[in-house]
Amino acid sequence: MTERLVVVGGDAAGMSAASQARRLRPELEIVAFERGSHVSYSACGEPYYVGGMVDSIDSLVARTPEEFAARQIDVHVRHEVSAIDLEKRKVQVTSLDGSGSRTVGFDQLIYATGSRPLRPTDITGIDGPGVFGLRTLDDAAVLKEKADQGPGRVVMIGGGYIGIEMAEAMVDRGWQVSMATSGLHILERTLDDRMGELADRAVREYGVELLTDARVTAVLDHGARQVVSGDGFSLVADLVVIGLGAGPEVELAAGAGIPLGVTGAVAVDDRQATGVPGVWSAGDCAEVRHRVSGLPVNMLLGTVANKTGRIAGTNLAGGDARFPGVLGTAITRIGPTEISRTGLKFNDAADAGFAPVSGFARGTVSAGYWPDNAPMGVMVIADRNTGQLLGGQIVGGPGAGKRIDVIATAMWAGMTAAELAWVDLAYAPPFSGVWDLIHIAARRAAEA
Amino acid sequence: MTERLVVVGGDAAGMSAASQARRLRPELEIVAFERGSHVSYSACGEPYYVGGMVDSIDSLVARTPEEFAARQIDVHVRHEVSAIDLEKRKVQVTSLDGSGSRTVGFDQLIYATGSRPLRPTDITGIDGPGVFGLRTLDDAAVLKEKADQGPGRVVMIGGGYIGIEMAEAMVDRGWQVSMATSGLHILERTLDDRMGELADRAVREYGVELLTDARVTAVLDHGARQVVSGDGFSLVADLVVIGLGAGPEVELAAGAGIPLGVTGAVAVDDRQATGVPGVWSAGDCAEVRHRVSGLPVNMLLGTVANKTGRIAGTNLAGGDARFPGVLGTAITRIGPTEISRTGLKFNDAADAGFAPVSGFARGTVSAGYWPDNAPMGVMVIADRNTGQLLGGQIVGGPGAGKRIDVIATAMWAGMTAAELAWVDLAYAPPFSGVWDLIHIAARRAAEA
Repeated sequence: MTERLVVVGGDAAGMSAASQARRLRPELEIVAFERGSHVSYSACGEPYYVGGMVDSIDSLVARTPEEFAARQIDVHVRHEVSAIDLEKRKVQVTSLDGSGSRTVGFDQLIYATGSRPLRPTDITGIDGPGVFGLRTLDDAAVLKEKADQGPGRVVMIGGGYIGIEMAEAMVDRGWQVSMATSGLHILERTLDDRMGELADRAVREYGVELLTDARVTAVLDHGARQVVSGDGFSLVADLVVIGLGAGPEVELAAGAGIPLGVTGAVAVDDRQATGVPGVWSAGDCAEVRHRVSGLPVNMLLGTVANKTGRIAGTNLAGGDARFPGVLGTAITRIGPTEISRTGLKFNDAADAGFAPVSGFARGTVSAGYWPDNAPMGVMVIADRNTGQLLGGQIVGGPGAGKRIDVIATAMWAGMTAAELAWVDLAYAPPFSGVWDLIHIAARRAAEA
Repeated sequence: MTERLVVVGGDAAGMSAASQARRLRPELEIVAFERGSHVSYSACGEPYYVGGMVDSIDSLVARTPEEFAARQIDVHVRHEVSAIDLEKRKVQVTSLDGSGSRTVGFDQLIYATGSRPLRPTDITGIDGPGVFGLRTLDDAAVLKEKADQGPGRVVMIGGGYIGIEMAEAMVDRGWQVSMATSGLHILERTLDDRMGELADRAVREYGVELLTDARVTAVLDHGARQVVSGDGFSLVADLVVIGLGAGPEVELAAGAGIPLGVTGAVAVDDRQATGVPGVWSAGDCAEVRHRVSGLPVNMLLGTVANKTGRIAGTNLAGGDARFPGVLGTAITRIGPTEISRTGLKFNDAADAGFAPVSGFARGTVSAGYWPDNAPMGVMVIADRNTGQLLGGQIVGGPGAGKRIDVIATAMWAGMTAAELAWVDLAYAPPFSGVWDLIHIAARRAAEA
């Protein structure tokens, strides 16, 4: 009998696993269930669809169910797996279009349910009809429709990546945008204060009214308009968008007895194996190892989902691939300002047992004399005792953000800040100074 | 008596050494001689001055003699050192403004005379009055004046960095630009054919008439116009600019008995010491070690000049700094197309004893669905037996070029192509695909 792989959750991780398994084992039967309306789409592209930059929602879909079918991957959208029976090796699947429920047996299973947005219960009215989140393409379609009805006043609750990207999108659509974050600056979980302040400035310069240290306690729905309020502030809005982070979607796994790790996400080894024979997990719902701290983390990033999915697919097809871990490298932008980061923040590095020091360099993206030059700031974090690179952050104009990859690569290789200060990086006046700001920040970290 | 440092050649390397020595040894007497009219200027910025992008030639000067004087560094421009007496430890200095000649004693000396443009003797008329090169700020001023007299027809002889950047400058000034290179594609010394062809296309798309495999044999001066000709071609020009590479300026060193290395440049150890006690060398005139091949090379790059100058300055001031070598990382652009490279070319890798394989990835700078997306090609070269990264090349739209630094950093750390294929690089739709093209090229090199 043909071996069957059941894929639970059809986005980046699940479908990467399915595709890789198909490449390596042409005879494997592969069935995927996705409770949403789409598989294999770019969630990261959604704000740009709402903002009108990307003009068709279909272009965010990397592959349709039909395209998967052509590769003998049997995809069922709007089908929710409601239970996994590890002993009898079968899943319970319910059609969300009312065509009933059935059980499907599996030989191997990949658990790739992703994440779900956090909706804190201490915000009154957070589940009201006028409060929108952004996770699936369906969410994006709804928000696009709302944006099309404007412009008006929108309040973003949360200062994370979704908040920033949606703020940009709505400014671009002509809306008046306010953002309320409980942090002392935006991206508080991923940027140190000095860099966060540069990010705040960029958000404000793009026309966003930014309220920091502003915890929202209530969203009151007055029909046509809403009032978002907290201690000492109150914002009127035609539309409220929430972006307060997300957590791993593990309910189904927990119910089935698939072990969870310390982070609350599914525990896996570096082959993406859950410990239950033939059951794998990848993407937002699974833990990964942080290469700097060595600790398990739950990193909700598209890059990680694609990579861990591919690793799982190789292994469940009989190969032996090992996921080498993450640094938490990420990038976003608000208008012309690019914001990127990798590794541990200063305080997180201290918490992880390091003795962090930082080097900061401020200058311009291009050579100092270049016209239309944009400002750029770089922070490099290293361990005082060993010199080991621990993290880096960049805020700057066009061309600045992706340079974080240099710090990430150096950190990946275990280099010291002193070593990074001498790497042979590319220079020409349109692109950088003769000493790259990364060199200077690294040297300062090494000498701190 | 105070110890005296004599700096021979006052550009990037010499003045970096002087500045670093001043920082570390406030009491050192420092005297610098430069035969040109300026010290410490950005030669790399010159094409952008000619092109009108940078509007003042003064902005290319990082520090004036007066600024150095304020730091107790005594700079003499238009003063040529005509002889170095290593035994008597003195130099012969001649004022180019006719104020005579004198000897100046030294305790330590840094030889930083830079490079001189190659003017092949097998091109008839190459030294004619209508043929211009670009090295010093004085050259740039002359070419700017010529460009201001246009637009007209200009012929670039040579397809290297200077040629490309001057071609862009002259197109920007409205000139009709032809370029003749003896190579099968431009940048033949630094790009493999596949990437060189992408670069050729970019040059042509920018409006340049490009002749490859076109060795110029004569430049005939007909007064107002000139004729540049070779086997099977003939180009009429109002202005001829030559950019056929450069070699180390070592005549003075050779005359003095400072040992030269196999490349013809001054031989130095990793402390920039020449072997003659108290005599150091740095910048274009000195050899450096290539980190991949392990061999001495003569790398004429501003980054290397600044770095080796700083190393020399630290050591002559009594410190102990070691130059960690070069990869030959470089970047340029022609209009919107960025061209960058690092490490060894494919054939050069074979010549150096490696068994090179390459991985190529072609796509776009941003996510596939991004509007106004620009094409991008990445090549990664690795050793078939060990997987070690040997080189990389990138040609692509805005944002592509500096990504070469990722390959350079990975190579610097001795990583394999397989390792680079999994590094945690930053992703968001405006910046890249979820798998960076560097990942894909590295994986293909690893699997080749």
